Amino acid sequence: MKKLAAEFIGTFWLVLGGCGSAMLAAGIPELGIGYMGVAFAFGLTVLTMAFAIGHISGCHLNPAVSVGLLIGGRFPAKDLLPYIVSQVLGGIAGAGVLYLICSGQDGFAIDPKSAGAFASNGYGDFSPHGYNLTSAFITEVVMTFMFLIIILGATDERAPAGLAPIAIGLGLTLIHLISIPVTNTSVNPARSLSQALFVGGQPLAQVWMFWVAPVIGAILAGVTYKWLGSGK
Amino acid sequence: MKKLAAEFIGTFWLVLGGCGSAMLAAGIPELGIGYMGVAFAFGLTVLTMAFAIGHISGCHLNPAVSVGLLIGGRFPAKDLLPYIVSQVLGGIAGAGVLYLICSGQDGFAIDPKSAGAFASNGYGDFSPHGYNLTSAFITEVVMTFMFLIIILGATDERAPAGLAPIAIGLGLTLIHLISIPVTNTSVNPARSLSQALFVGGQPLAQVWMFWVAPVIGAILAGVTYKWLGSGK
Amino acid sequence: MKKLAAEFIGTFWLVLGGCGSAMLAAGIPELGIGYMGVAFAFGLTVLTMAFAIGHISGCHLNPAVSVGLLIGGRFPAKDLLPYIVSQVLGGIAGAGVLYLICSGQDGFAIDPKSAGAFASNGYGDFSPHGYNLTSAFITEVVMTFMFLIIILGATDERAPAGLAPIAIGLGLTLIHLISIPVTNTSVNPARSLSQALFVGGQPLAQVWMFWVAPVIGAILAGVTYKWLGSGK
Amino acid sequence: MKKLAAEFIGTFWLVLGGCGSAMLAAGIPELGIGYMGVAFAFGLTVLTMAFAIGHISGCHLNPAVSVGLLIGGRFPAKDLLPYIVSQVLGGIAGAGVLYLICSGQDGFAIDPKSAGAFASNGYGDFSPHGYNLTSAFITEVVMTFMFLIIILGATDERAPAGLAPIAIGLGLTLIHLISIPVTNTSVNPARSLSQALFVGGQPLAQVWMFWVAPVIGAILAGVTYKWLGSGK
Repeated sequence: MKKLAAEFIGTFWLVLGGCGSAMLAAGIPELGIGYMGVAFAFGLTVLTMAFAIGHISGCHLNPAVSVGLLIGGRFPAKDLLPYIVSQVLGGIAGAGVLYLICSGQDGFAIDPKSAGAFASNGYGDFSPHGYNLTSAFITEVVMTFMFLIIILGATDERAPAGLAPIAIGLGLTLIHLISIPVTNTSVNPARSLSQALFVGGQPLAQVWMFWVAPVIGAILAGVTYKWLGSGK
Repeated sequence: MKKLAAEFIGTFWLVLGGCGSAMLAAGIPELGIGYMGVAFAFGLTVLTMAFAIGHISGCHLNPAVSVGLLIGGRFPAKDLLPYIVSQVLGGIAGAGVLYLICSGQDGFAIDPKSAGAFASNGYGDFSPHGYNLTSAFITEVVMTFMFLIIILGATDERAPAGLAPIAIGLGLTLIHLISIPVTNTSVNPARSLSQALFVGGQPLAQVWMFWVAPVIGAILAGVTYKWLGSGK
Repeated sequence: MKKLAAEFIGTFWLVLGGCGSAMLAAGIPELGIGYMGVAFAFGLTVLTMAFAIGHISGCHLNPAVSVGLLIGGRFPAKDLLPYIVSQVLGGIAGAGVLYLICSGQDGFAIDPKSAGAFASNGYGDFSPHGYNLTSAFITEVVMTFMFLIIILGATDERAPAGLAPIAIGLGLTLIHLISIPVTNTSVNPARSLSQALFVGGQPLAQVWMFWVAPVIGAILAGVTYKWLGSGK
Repeated sequence: MKKLAAEFIGTFWLVLGGCGSAMLAAGIPELGIGYMGVAFAFGLTVLTMAFAIGHISGCHLNPAVSVGLLIGGRFPAKDLLPYIVSQVLGGIAGAGVLYLICSGQDGFAIDPKSAGAFASNGYGDFSPHGYNLTSAFITEVVMTFMFLIIILGATDERAPAGLAPIAIGLGLTLIHLISIPVTNTSVNPARSLSQALFVGGQPLAQVWMFWVAPVIGAILAGVTYKWLGSGK
């Protein structure tokens, strides 16, 4: 129960912090934090939570991460579904609080025809800079694959103890530095769904891709690291 | 006595460094550090002090943090008031030195009718980007809540030893990446009071909110983590 | 075999992440991550991989690093060639995936007459800001020299255990903060070759310099640290 | 002898990396790293060197740091002068290499009448944003004071082991985030002298202040921490 509460709080923070920085602070002229600030925000949500609740739930905050850890032999199958449900609910709660905060500014509205509305993910016309489905799919598969390689490697018992939260958090920052322009960066189905639910329209119709591609990337990474990290 | 001196110096640094970066370096055309630089500055004041004086006073630097740690069972009630007094005085000293430095530039003046004057916090007309009281209140409660969850979790004896300063400092950076546009980010009553005292007018009249909301967030976090972090 | 696979994956990530951030996200008006974001991206590819695969292959990801470690007495000569082949192949794979992703945006094309095309390195007319061969050569020698001093020093048994990935990764970030305008920053022959192969023309003709200068810098550092770090 | 060589190399890197990022990469339109990138560059020179040569020389790289450690009881008086000489020579070497690199771009020239020329420090007309001598002096005293508090505190035996390089390096980043606009940030007499020697004119005439103020700040910090950090 505490594990699920921790996953809920952590995913709440990932969505509120990451998508919140994008909605509230990225695009302000002159002073705004831009894509780089959003990249640090997403990464730091995971870094801070991995230090704060890693010892409680393992701090996945992401259905693809839970799947990858399962395939990599680090996470029991019976916990998969409850974890994913907690992550999705936490993400929706984060999006809800963000919606409340945004609503306190005059003129706030979500335009479901605009790419990246409410920090949603998308491809084609809904990619922030017009990348097509193929590019977007490859990007999400590869980025999630590398995210799981980082997670599985940095939490390997032969890796330096205690420092995995830094590797994993800054790994997510890196992934955003690369791929925000392509898909607004998901690598996390819970984060994609929560935003899409508040936007509706095409972004919601495209959300399937941000479940399929990250999960494929995570499975490939789980299989790869199982071999790569296994002793000699 | 040394604990109180450490809290004084640390809060002095938080205010001078965080608000100083905002006043001196954020808004310079082309080269300025923007909100992202201010976010790193605030976070790094806490990161550096947590490494430097954490072993002396615990490095709270923030009345809401002291309250949250008290509720979370990590801080004795008898030290609360002296700590808060030291933090407030340290913050005022930091604001004073910042005022001295700013005064050495031609044309420096504080305009109490301008949102964010002297790095003050505010809501409504005094929010940097016009967020109303409700948004501002929710933001300060939730951000302080998560700040204390990070602090309580990262200093839990089951968390990686010695790395809490990184989690906590970068956690404050993250909070600023999200919420500067809403309230200029407080989550710290001492930091809000010190700046408001130098501005007066409406920013001083609004300072109550930056005591009430962070303390509520901290209390909720203390209660939450007491349950969340308690063994199985 | 696993060592070589790890070097392949790591160099793939270095090129895809570092050059990818430059191609996809650096130059976007207002929101783009600029040279600073690219600097963090390159550094974080190494930081994340050093935590994830350091215990497998040592995480060189760079022929100059392998040479420097060999000269410094930390790496067996018999592994040098296989490591370099894996790094080069990994880099080419990273460039290939990046090419695929870039191709999904309308109007994408590589112009071999443009400085820095496809994140290639160059000097003279192909330096991002017109630095001549002498400047470029000195820059690459000195930057690689210091990169190897950082690597050899931070992995010295007298240095703090487990933290070398942070020193080395952020060291590469620092090197990019300084030298992107001069050569687009190489310090890594594999990263230079992979991009040049996709560009052809002058950038490919200039790639010799980004093998010679980094290797010279690395050899000098190996010799220097062997003396500097040897007990009293 | 190795200690002095390490101080030479480290200060060489501090000046080449910090001032180099400012000269080469800060002011480029759209893509440039700005004051924030320079702040990270200075800090990362110290972070990387503290990991790489901390176990050799202690990694001071700064006459004010050596003085502060002496007063704080952490550094023997007999080593002070040799350390300072090594630091000054290393800084000059760094400035020399930077001059060579800069010279490879058409039109490079140092204008001794321009504030901040060749990354020099200054006050009044030579402050980057026109801060007078009083502001500049206070800034340099207080910033160096806090830098030494961070150094003395983070290397205290009660502080987390091995992490001082992170605290100290990012502390220098923070100091630059605050104070570049005031004095171009010194807190380091060697770094000020090396740049001023290449500029001449008023910046060289003002260099006295960047020896006096940092040393005063360091002495005050040494005395303060000796009391603050002394057991109960």
